[in-house]
Amino acid sequence: MRDFWNQVDTYAKQWIKEAGDRIKASFSRELVIETKSNPNDLVTNMDKDIEQFFISKIKEVFPGHRILGEEGYGEKIETSEGVIWVIDPIDGTMNFVHQQRNFAISVGIFENGVGQAGFIYDVVHDELYHARKGKGAYINDQQLPPLKQVSIEESIVSLNATWVTENRRIDPSVLSPLVTRVRGTRSYGSAAIELAYVAAGRLDAYITMRLAPWDFAAGKVLIEELGGVVTDLEGKPLDILDRSSVFVAKPGLHEEILSTYLSKYKG
Amino acid sequence: MRDFWNQVDTYAKQWIKEAGDRIKASFSRELVIETKSNPNDLVTNMDKDIEQFFISKIKEVFPGHRILGEEGYGEKIETSEGVIWVIDPIDGTMNFVHQQRNFAISVGIFENGVGQAGFIYDVVHDELYHARKGKGAYINDQQLPPLKQVSIEESIVSLNATWVTENRRIDPSVLSPLVTRVRGTRSYGSAAIELAYVAAGRLDAYITMRLAPWDFAAGKVLIEELGGVVTDLEGKPLDILDRSSVFVAKPGLHEEILSTYLSKYKG
Repeated sequence: MRDFWNQVDTYAKQWIKEAGDRIKASFSRELVIETKSNPNDLVTNMDKDIEQFFISKIKEVFPGHRILGEEGYGEKIETSEGVIWVIDPIDGTMNFVHQQRNFAISVGIFENGVGQAGFIYDVVHDELYHARKGKGAYINDQQLPPLKQVSIEESIVSLNATWVTENRRIDPSVLSPLVTRVRGTRSYGSAAIELAYVAAGRLDAYITMRLAPWDFAAGKVLIEELGGVVTDLEGKPLDILDRSSVFVAKPGLHEEILSTYLSKYKG
Repeated sequence: MRDFWNQVDTYAKQWIKEAGDRIKASFSRELVIETKSNPNDLVTNMDKDIEQFFISKIKEVFPGHRILGEEGYGEKIETSEGVIWVIDPIDGTMNFVHQQRNFAISVGIFENGVGQAGFIYDVVHDELYHARKGKGAYINDQQLPPLKQVSIEESIVSLNATWVTENRRIDPSVLSPLVTRVRGTRSYGSAAIELAYVAAGRLDAYITMRLAPWDFAAGKVLIEELGGVVTDLEGKPLDILDRSSVFVAKPGLHEEILSTYLSKYKG
């Protein structure tokens, strides 16, 4: 089994770097931008191309594996049995379109529902955050230390202004008192980047109201490998096949924010 | 005069790069972190060292110039006559401490109150945003195009969650409807980086309630050179010797946000 996961890891990294090169090469070409369900949910030809690139590679080398991808070119998946690659070809498409930065390729690999490997590749800055369950987490070749406890007052929390403004997912009064108490809030516009930042200790927590499996799959493996806590806003485990709210934080901080602030949240 | 400003420009860039190298070298050493007026207003030995480095260089080469710096090692300045260097040695100190990224060196050079040169150096990503009044604006060697009009619905606005939460600077109801209407909001935690992003077209607007001259001096030169609009939240010009709220945006967008949303703001 070790040889098998080493092989998966080697291929995943190779394909992710190759996908990153394709994305960088696209910067000099014209993007075709469409909107999906709502005008702010952008998708580009690159999102589609990169997902299809991963699918063709995975099908060729690991024909028994299944693929759950943002653009829907993978199969319909209703059970978590076997090996499933959960892929967001470009997480943070709005940043990709507007900024050509602050987006990432996100790949989480699960076996029978358990995260075995996670990869978040910040393409522009050439930073690959990666973890294997029980084998440690890294940025490129540099090992990341386990996440340490921090007080609420000293913490930096990633939290979009939307969630403390009238919206259809959460009463703004739930998180407002947390915003007032923390050292600072940030918002980068890419769940994968924000999860990678929590893994790297650059953010202490990240709270958001609606993510799909491909947004959080890789980040979950990375953060859990470092002792961080990954749940929804009610403190329940995330289902790798389902959309949900997401709340990740350093150990201790997670329990404190959950009991002090999120107990008022009705999901 | 052209030769004089070319000389200032050359020295400024050289010193900024040297300061950046000093900051990068500090990553492997232990930081000494103090708090200033409140526990979230951090200052490190690097902030102080870098400001003193600039002062010694400027005094040596341009003894007649005055210096207004965040750490207060410059002189007390009450008039804007002559040439004034407005310097933030590390803008985004909290990011510097927590993330070792998303901070910048910010240097604006003003003559009789008029911005003549602006430099924002994103040290970690080695991106120097620079502009000379009437000579164009650049990222490193790449010239930036003039800022284009954009609709509110398609814009990405940098706006911290604090300003739509109970705070002592602005009623949260002023900006909440804007957050709901825009394509997205972001918050990076460094005014200089956020202003540089507006100059580069990566953000369409930036709104914040309290900045000092060293936070906005360089960004003002950059954004105005590209046709963007730089004011306080009441639409009044910024005073380069005074703290104020700051609202910058692309042309057109600035007028629309000002008349639709900020008219409800009482400064």
